[in-house]
Amino acid sequence: MKRATLDEATSNSRVESAIEATWFRNLITGLIIINAAILGILTYSEYLSPDTVFALEMMDRAITFAFAFEIGLKLIVYRQQFFKQGWNWFDFIVVGISLIPGSAAFSVLRALRVLRVLRLLHVVPMMRRITEALFKALPGMGAIVAVLALLTYVYAVMATNMYGSSNDPEVTQLFGDLPSSAFSLFQVMTMDGWRFEVVQKVVDDGHPYAPFFFLTFIFIASFAVLNLFIALIVEALAAEQKAATEELIDDLEEDVEHAEEERDEILKLIKAMREEIAELKNVVGNASKANP
Amino acid sequence: MKRATLDEATSNSRVESAIEATWFRNLITGLIIINAAILGILTYSEYLSPDTVFALEMMDRAITFAFAFEIGLKLIVYRQQFFKQGWNWFDFIVVGISLIPGSAAFSVLRALRVLRVLRLLHVVPMMRRITEALFKALPGMGAIVAVLALLTYVYAVMATNMYGSSNDPEVTQLFGDLPSSAFSLFQVMTMDGWRFEVVQKVVDDGHPYAPFFFLTFIFIASFAVLNLFIALIVEALAAEQKAATEELIDDLEEDVEHAEEERDEILKLIKAMREEIAELKNVVGNASKANP
Amino acid sequence: MKRATLDEATSNSRVESAIEATWFRNLITGLIIINAAILGILTYSEYLSPDTVFALEMMDRAITFAFAFEIGLKLIVYRQQFFKQGWNWFDFIVVGISLIPGSAAFSVLRALRVLRVLRLLHVVPMMRRITEALFKALPGMGAIVAVLALLTYVYAVMATNMYGSSNDPEVTQLFGDLPSSAFSLFQVMTMDGWRFEVVQKVVDDGHPYAPFFFLTFIFIASFAVLNLFIALIVEALAAEQKAATEELIDDLEEDVEHAEEERDEILKLIKAMREEIAELKNVVGNASKANP
Amino acid sequence: MKRATLDEATSNSRVESAIEATWFRNLITGLIIINAAILGILTYSEYLSPDTVFALEMMDRAITFAFAFEIGLKLIVYRQQFFKQGWNWFDFIVVGISLIPGSAAFSVLRALRVLRVLRLLHVVPMMRRITEALFKALPGMGAIVAVLALLTYVYAVMATNMYGSSNDPEVTQLFGDLPSSAFSLFQVMTMDGWRFEVVQKVVDDGHPYAPFFFLTFIFIASFAVLNLFIALIVEALAAEQKAATEELIDDLEEDVEHAEEERDEILKLIKAMREEIAELKNVVGNASKANP
Repeated sequence: MKRATLDEATSNSRVESAIEATWFRNLITGLIIINAAILGILTYSEYLSPDTVFALEMMDRAITFAFAFEIGLKLIVYRQQFFKQGWNWFDFIVVGISLIPGSAAFSVLRALRVLRVLRLLHVVPMMRRITEALFKALPGMGAIVAVLALLTYVYAVMATNMYGSSNDPEVTQLFGDLPSSAFSLFQVMTMDGWRFEVVQKVVDDGHPYAPFFFLTFIFIASFAVLNLFIALIVEALAAEQKAATEELIDDLEEDVEHAEEERDEILKLIKAMREEIAELKNVVGNASKANP
Repeated sequence: MKRATLDEATSNSRVESAIEATWFRNLITGLIIINAAILGILTYSEYLSPDTVFALEMMDRAITFAFAFEIGLKLIVYRQQFFKQGWNWFDFIVVGISLIPGSAAFSVLRALRVLRVLRLLHVVPMMRRITEALFKALPGMGAIVAVLALLTYVYAVMATNMYGSSNDPEVTQLFGDLPSSAFSLFQVMTMDGWRFEVVQKVVDDGHPYAPFFFLTFIFIASFAVLNLFIALIVEALAAEQKAATEELIDDLEEDVEHAEEERDEILKLIKAMREEIAELKNVVGNASKANP
Repeated sequence: MKRATLDEATSNSRVESAIEATWFRNLITGLIIINAAILGILTYSEYLSPDTVFALEMMDRAITFAFAFEIGLKLIVYRQQFFKQGWNWFDFIVVGISLIPGSAAFSVLRALRVLRVLRLLHVVPMMRRITEALFKALPGMGAIVAVLALLTYVYAVMATNMYGSSNDPEVTQLFGDLPSSAFSLFQVMTMDGWRFEVVQKVVDDGHPYAPFFFLTFIFIASFAVLNLFIALIVEALAAEQKAATEELIDDLEEDVEHAEEERDEILKLIKAMREEIAELKNVVGNASKANP
Repeated sequence: MKRATLDEATSNSRVESAIEATWFRNLITGLIIINAAILGILTYSEYLSPDTVFALEMMDRAITFAFAFEIGLKLIVYRQQFFKQGWNWFDFIVVGISLIPGSAAFSVLRALRVLRVLRLLHVVPMMRRITEALFKALPGMGAIVAVLALLTYVYAVMATNMYGSSNDPEVTQLFGDLPSSAFSLFQVMTMDGWRFEVVQKVVDDGHPYAPFFFLTFIFIASFAVLNLFIALIVEALAAEQKAATEELIDDLEEDVEHAEEERDEILKLIKAMREEIAELKNVVGNASKANP
């Protein structure tokens, strides 16, 4: 039995080194790109012969199974460690979606197949660096996004109460219920057609003071978004700057230490000299005493 | 009587420590969130049974009275200090609005009930930090906002004079009076539908040179907004940078002081040595004089 | 005659100190604000009685003459210096426009009266600081604005040649001649309705590849604008930073100089000591020679 | 034969110094500007007499040949070096396009003539500096642009699958095939008419959950664009800062070196003194031994 586990361990470490090799990553990258192309071509399926569509679907299936096999290998090798990494969860889910039996029946699930292509985001190192930088920037936005969400909620409740029970279908489409109001306020926040597609319709529905309501929202929201933006820039720059300053300090620190060592040597020498002079004085004193 | 004031003082300090305790803040936070949910659900009142609506309205009333009680407690504890803090004014007003008798009759006042939910902005510490950072950034914008407002006023007067007395209702809606003109110019400033919803309508109304008028406004306003933005970034960064530089200077200052202390010691030692050599010279001189 | 010039000089210096006094600036500021209000109210002239309009027009005239008198005083006091300041030119022109006889006949010149209100931009110190900061930022934008203008010109010539001779009046309105094309491209650059108001109309006019033409323009122009923006931020920050670094360097420079002075003193003392030791050696040597 | 090559070399170096002279650059700049004006005027050819059009066309031809001659000179002088510079390729292609025989027949090739005017971008030094700064900023954008392109591709495949096979021509125009979907998603990314021109049409086509699909795209894409922007600012500033810090370090380095030299001199002097004291002690010791 021990032999079996040894064999297993050997094969495990061999599989692990294969999984982490560059050729393996390149192979996976290649499969993802081919898969992306296949899924792109399949959007033209009405112009393709049924045989071509069938062949492409089979290739997609094959690649999906290859990905499932890859994830299975990783599960065997890393075991409990596998789910400690977010990207593995991502792979597990996007490949798993395509393996749900009968998923072919649901157009939404079929559409989600293409999410597998997003695996490139962490398989290609250059993209992984960017994606992880983006994820790292997320927590810094949390508080302002919470403030913006709260603001939008409060304005959405007010807008629904004030403008929601209208007879104009265009206004009820905009502010008829809470989600619609929040969506319309988000539209106003993006400054897209805010005047004639939103504010003016409410004004025309008999709310002459609606512009004040929306202007306060635009001002507060723009100001918050602006500050979110500034906060992210300042944070990123402060980190950069801290590194630069620390480098500068380190350089100086070395110089300062070197200077201190030299000064210490000077001090030591001077002290030694003082002792020698004291000794000399002693000798001379004795000599002059002995030789009066 | 003295006893009463003592009792009162004791109860006051007990109430104060309760008000400032974390459990109290969490309780208030919870009540605000529940209140937010209730007011959200009440926007669907037409789909709810009258009993449910009544129950929700009662809960809203109860929470309002709870908030009024909280503010009353604070008024008793902090007395004259209460109104020195802006957030307390905010609480006083948004809770007070809901207590105005007959307020239920006015849909606007009813709609304003939801402003109570904005109390979260200062009750939740994370949001409070952000909100106060936003308030601190406001004065830095004052001067540019004043310049933009003046510019909009001047352009609005010109636009009303030049385009206001039109026969085209679309143009009079845009520039028929001073507030409409200012609003339309704000729309142009946000770059939302500025060409076909605003400028082209004025051109079609017989003002072929209107684009020049609006282009100067767009250029000047964008440039001012851009600089407002840059000023805020630079200000935020300069503050960050000043802190970093000061830290660096402090570190160097210590090193410099240490070096100075050591140099002072070296100087002291050398001076002492000189005296000793002088003494020595004296001794030797005397000896050689005595021993010619 | 000499007496007259002396009197004149005295009165001139008295006038000058009056012109530069704070009360005089506040008076002018007040007049400008009143003038702004009058011109604002006059936009509602159709709702006012003819007498009110007449009174307001008279007040406007009176303030204009007051401004002309102020400028006259400045011309007498500063003489040739007057036109060396840009703001004086500005005042001279905006007040002069209102004094053109018969100007009341031209609605455009009447509309330009309100430009006098822009005098606030340099009379109020807070606004003056902002406005001058904006002017200072202008030269830094010159090169990129030139690149953008060149790009727009080249694309406008191409667009006019390719799309200008259309039968669709909507497309000729967009790209019928060079200025229209430049204006439409500016619209595309501001991202306002670029797809359905511009690109799609050209596509529908029989140019299926137009999106490529416009996408290259959008990408190049956005990228240039983005870099213009970044250049302005970096420039503003670098100036700020240079000041901070120079302050830091100055502080260090002082420390370094102090350290150098101390080292120089140490060196001087050591050299003096060496001479004394040499002397001492001489004395001892002589003594030992004399006393063998 | 040798003489011929010598002559050729002499004439080559003479031509080279001419090509690189300021007057030559100014001549070319002037020709480009005249060419730009001619091509601009030619967009009004329908309002011009056939003779004027003919004259302008001839001038354009002449200038094209002048440019071809200039490029020919450069080819002769620089030979294999010519194609090592990107701008020379640019000149070669934009001038070459105009020389293709029969090009006058194709309106697109005729429209491309105006690209010659873009030669200003590298002939005028001020513009060249900006243009090269823009090119240098490009690689820094590569990774985020790749992420955005991947994202757009994935969303475009999903959108085509989910919304493409609609009966509503407006929706098929938006999402009927992969390029249309990508174009529509780009429109959403620029926030131009994203709600009523795109999202609402899909919702009205029977996809009530489409807003969620588009909102995730807007959030992710805006966030990526924002970070692209921040990365460019931080990169530009870090470079600026590094230069400033290095200058500071260099200044300090000099001071530190100077201090070290002085300390070395102090050490040398002290060591010399010690030797002298040792010698002195020796002399005194000998003297006192000899003279007990």
